[in-house]
Amino acid sequence: MSKLRIAIAGYGNLGRGVELAVRQNDDMELVGVFTRRDPSTVKTATGVSAYSMDDALNMRDAIDVMIICGGSATDLPKQTPELVKHFNVIDSFDTHARIPEHFANVDKAAKENNHLAMISLGWDPGLFSLNRLYAEAILPSGKTYTFWGKGVSQGHSDAIRRVDGVKKGIQYTVPVDEAMDAVRSGTLPELTTRQKHKRECFVVAEEGADLAKIENEIKTMKNYFDEYDTTVNFITDEEFDAVHNRMPHGGFVMRSGLTGIDEKTHHMIEYSIKLDSNPEFTASVLVCYARALGRLSAEGQTGCKTAFDIAPAYLSKLSGEQLRASLL
Amino acid sequence: MSKLRIAIAGYGNLGRGVELAVRQNDDMELVGVFTRRDPSTVKTATGVSAYSMDDALNMRDAIDVMIICGGSATDLPKQTPELVKHFNVIDSFDTHARIPEHFANVDKAAKENNHLAMISLGWDPGLFSLNRLYAEAILPSGKTYTFWGKGVSQGHSDAIRRVDGVKKGIQYTVPVDEAMDAVRSGTLPELTTRQKHKRECFVVAEEGADLAKIENEIKTMKNYFDEYDTTVNFITDEEFDAVHNRMPHGGFVMRSGLTGIDEKTHHMIEYSIKLDSNPEFTASVLVCYARALGRLSAEGQTGCKTAFDIAPAYLSKLSGEQLRASLL
Repeated sequence: MSKLRIAIAGYGNLGRGVELAVRQNDDMELVGVFTRRDPSTVKTATGVSAYSMDDALNMRDAIDVMIICGGSATDLPKQTPELVKHFNVIDSFDTHARIPEHFANVDKAAKENNHLAMISLGWDPGLFSLNRLYAEAILPSGKTYTFWGKGVSQGHSDAIRRVDGVKKGIQYTVPVDEAMDAVRSGTLPELTTRQKHKRECFVVAEEGADLAKIENEIKTMKNYFDEYDTTVNFITDEEFDAVHNRMPHGGFVMRSGLTGIDEKTHHMIEYSIKLDSNPEFTASVLVCYARALGRLSAEGQTGCKTAFDIAPAYLSKLSGEQLRASLL
Repeated sequence: MSKLRIAIAGYGNLGRGVELAVRQNDDMELVGVFTRRDPSTVKTATGVSAYSMDDALNMRDAIDVMIICGGSATDLPKQTPELVKHFNVIDSFDTHARIPEHFANVDKAAKENNHLAMISLGWDPGLFSLNRLYAEAILPSGKTYTFWGKGVSQGHSDAIRRVDGVKKGIQYTVPVDEAMDAVRSGTLPELTTRQKHKRECFVVAEEGADLAKIENEIKTMKNYFDEYDTTVNFITDEEFDAVHNRMPHGGFVMRSGLTGIDEKTHHMIEYSIKLDSNPEFTASVLVCYARALGRLSAEGQTGCKTAFDIAPAYLSKLSGEQLRASLL
């Protein structure tokens, strides 16, 4: 059987993760990386070729799935509906509130051009969404909780770095143990934003900066920090570079549900991930959905799909028979 | 929209669980319980009618999905291929080694009669299988571990009760904390049967029985206990009835996987359930897959399916639009 030919649009941390993940799947091969930068300036991790985005259309016949690795704020809302005119595409669009709008745009462009798209893949949205759906369908009477962390939030780290006097900054979102224990107790607690997560910041200040002022400015920042218990730790440049140079993340989806004659029998379903590299893991999710996309496209499907629409068997290299014998 | 009309074949703990789970889903209704016993002797939990299994065929047009609640050892291998000739059916067949054979039998009978079947639903096989598949597809380089418990094993409890001098007995399978911690450490340990689980037995002895002899007989029982660290606790009749009158269970599916340029970046995916009632939870899984079966059958699908073949969206009452807006 011929290999699934994958291309990457956009080469940052996520694109690099896709490049590495494709290598772990021997039924796929990487055609190349497409970039808006000068391709001669892009050094890929495995030596795969980089091309100008403008050349992508000429290579259309050599590409089965284009994995779009841009950002959700400004890249994907434009890129995905545009690229799906020419390719089968996957993205990791993660602005939850704007998913319906993004879906509609991509679905329309995909159907008009007989292509297939999958959007909002990764872990949240993505795997966490799947777990919310499965758990709520199984236990209709109950409550679902999502906790994020411990992990780096890019948006909050950026916000810290915009504060006057901050040279380097990183923010970890941390789920509160007491809140998770309360959920596990089966009491179906109502939890406030402050009760669920805390925010830990590590900051390298500019020389001579007013540390108290920086700390106060971070802690009171609207929308980012003011609704949370936030700690600000000032550290040295050296410690920052040595300790805070990675992008770990993780989180939990919990469903506490009740069954029985009086709905008094309690059940907990819990899904959690602990990732040493958020972009590498997200890339791994995108790549296994690329396999599903290749198969569904071969079946003639078009339009836009999400993780909810994909039968699990499509994700695996194994046949139905092998899956039933080994994993069921 | 008309409600999905569900019938139950076999009324034990699982059948009763299905009866109660259907009440939690307002897009379904229960037609009745079908039993091989004298139906006048069956008192259902909610007062739904019990009928003789022989009457099921006459009520064929009133039933959309028949949920078969028999045992895997002798009931389901016969009942499911037989009933699928006349109904769309679901079962919880859980003898892992015999799934391929059961699948083939059910698939053949289903296709010959234009019906749709789903087999081996519940949590293992079922939800645990799904989690093994998703996690292995996402992280192809790694190792998967399944732990069961703490929970009651029916087979092992039956084995205890067959020992001479035992009046009442129950067995709990308990995952070993140290083994789970070793998995979470990311070292991809090889774990023996003894290292993964231990077995805790609670026994009420007949008056005058030789306790040391009972304990020895249990601990050395081939296939059941000899490969495990087993503890035997002798308790009173009163304690047994007060404490050990429920069917809790649970377990863990863990995937430890590696990504990155040298496959040194570690990720853990962990799925766990903690159930106060194994049969009520298993029933809840069967019932939400009945919804999927009703929809897929309406689309004209026939043959045999497993959890691997069902796109998650089919399990939920919500529309695709609602799912994307609320759960994605």
